[in-house]
Amino acid sequence: MTRIVIHEVGPRDGLQMEKQVVPLETKEGWIRRVMDAGVDIVQVGSFVHPEKVPQMADTDELFRRLTTGKTSTTLLSGLVLNEKGLERGLACGVEMFCLGASASETHSRKNTGMGTEEATERIVGAAKQAVAAGRKVQVSVQSAFGCGFEGPVPEERVLGMVRAYLEAGLRSISLADTAGHADPAQVERLFGAVLKLDPGVECTCHFHNTYGLGMANIFAARRAGVTSFETSFAGLGGCPFTRVAAGNVATEDLVHVLQRQGFRTEVDLERLIAVARDVAAHFGRDMQGYVHRTGPIATKEPS
Amino acid sequence: MTRIVIHEVGPRDGLQMEKQVVPLETKEGWIRRVMDAGVDIVQVGSFVHPEKVPQMADTDELFRRLTTGKTSTTLLSGLVLNEKGLERGLACGVEMFCLGASASETHSRKNTGMGTEEATERIVGAAKQAVAAGRKVQVSVQSAFGCGFEGPVPEERVLGMVRAYLEAGLRSISLADTAGHADPAQVERLFGAVLKLDPGVECTCHFHNTYGLGMANIFAARRAGVTSFETSFAGLGGCPFTRVAAGNVATEDLVHVLQRQGFRTEVDLERLIAVARDVAAHFGRDMQGYVHRTGPIATKEPS
Repeated sequence: MTRIVIHEVGPRDGLQMEKQVVPLETKEGWIRRVMDAGVDIVQVGSFVHPEKVPQMADTDELFRRLTTGKTSTTLLSGLVLNEKGLERGLACGVEMFCLGASASETHSRKNTGMGTEEATERIVGAAKQAVAAGRKVQVSVQSAFGCGFEGPVPEERVLGMVRAYLEAGLRSISLADTAGHADPAQVERLFGAVLKLDPGVECTCHFHNTYGLGMANIFAARRAGVTSFETSFAGLGGCPFTRVAAGNVATEDLVHVLQRQGFRTEVDLERLIAVARDVAAHFGRDMQGYVHRTGPIATKEPS
Repeated sequence: MTRIVIHEVGPRDGLQMEKQVVPLETKEGWIRRVMDAGVDIVQVGSFVHPEKVPQMADTDELFRRLTTGKTSTTLLSGLVLNEKGLERGLACGVEMFCLGASASETHSRKNTGMGTEEATERIVGAAKQAVAAGRKVQVSVQSAFGCGFEGPVPEERVLGMVRAYLEAGLRSISLADTAGHADPAQVERLFGAVLKLDPGVECTCHFHNTYGLGMANIFAARRAGVTSFETSFAGLGGCPFTRVAAGNVATEDLVHVLQRQGFRTEVDLERLIAVARDVAAHFGRDMQGYVHRTGPIATKEPS
């Protein structure tokens, strides 16, 4: 049985949406605790222009701190959208590069100033450089299930990008539901089509909860053969360049149900819940996750 | 293809949890609008002792008002837990009786003062009377997937109750996840086992979102062959006699995704969203549903 991989993206996809910039030391503390809990991959931040996303201005420094004397087996990933970001990431010790382009022309232009085709070509080029530098690489298709600007995104556009990745030898591929439009039937169909192109693809999924379907989509993806899941502490998240977006599926909610089913029981759920509670307390508002509020299901509760 | 049935239980399972008693006229207005939206069944209220659940004290009067001169094809259901409730329901025009007992001994005793076996026998007796009176009847197993007091509930206990219902000729059966403990694999397994006992059972499901799994469980139930879904406007809900409980899956969230998939497109989603917004406004707090906040996915949004 293939191991289920948990990729915590809260420090990037969660914090980039927040008006309030979180101090470096606070971020570092949250990330270290998620690593200690035994999560497989943590996305530390993105390498984008600090004027565009000031919340991510300290990503390089965070990587330097976290990789210095590192003994944890948790991989530290960074999101890169262009060559400049790649250069920064290579310099500061990114262990796994996440590179992506959007299947929506409008979303792609708003996010990068380039259309889908050009953005994909540049991502493929940057990904090849990261591979050549000996780093792990995951490439993604953003807005793979629909776009807040354009509406439905044709599956053939997504599969075209996947083919471009596969032709370049890039076989760790994430499909991201940036706007939250995916439904379970679509998820199963699209990941099925990807795995038909190449049954050896390591498929990752990333779902936003805009319309309440994140967890249902995760289980649909699992059924289709997806083994890696991008989730966010407390359910924090969104993309600043989409029109309507809501949180990610909460990491502790996913780990909780997986453990109910006998998977990944060695991950320290209590520690993840504690981090999610601290994240919620930091922002001082209700978060979308459930389990950090309720606690895990007790085997037997006192009456 | 079997038609998917939507059963709105907000006026009962939602409102019974609220400290604030909703005025009869307000309830009546919400119910009429849900009927006008084309929902198949609306659970108007329960017949329990008004001192125990004062929020439901006006159920009889509501039924009288709603059935007088009724032309809508929406069925009006009422929840009954004992013979006295049955008597009241028969007198005031309940069209569909929902009768149930809990598979959890502790939950059953707290809810009815009887253990599971005795409660099931009495429910079967009352259900037979309702059938004899020419009414539609649905019987349920509460706490079918776990109990906030007892923890796991053995599947054999649930199947034992289902067998008792089937032997009495009662073939419309709902499994309710009162505490929200169900996970998708368990849901598929348990409904599969029920349908193996009798492939002709009309299965209904009812999931609480305590741990964020309601919608995922609905899709698991659909896969197992369940065709009827109990949901609540705005996601309101819970049971006053369980220890930890959270809202139901929101009716408008379910209709929204079903319509994305081409099902039940004749139901008036905008009207359901308007009701959910009014329910949220009435209580003046954030509700768990999503679509009443975001609106439906637009085919193409303006950029």
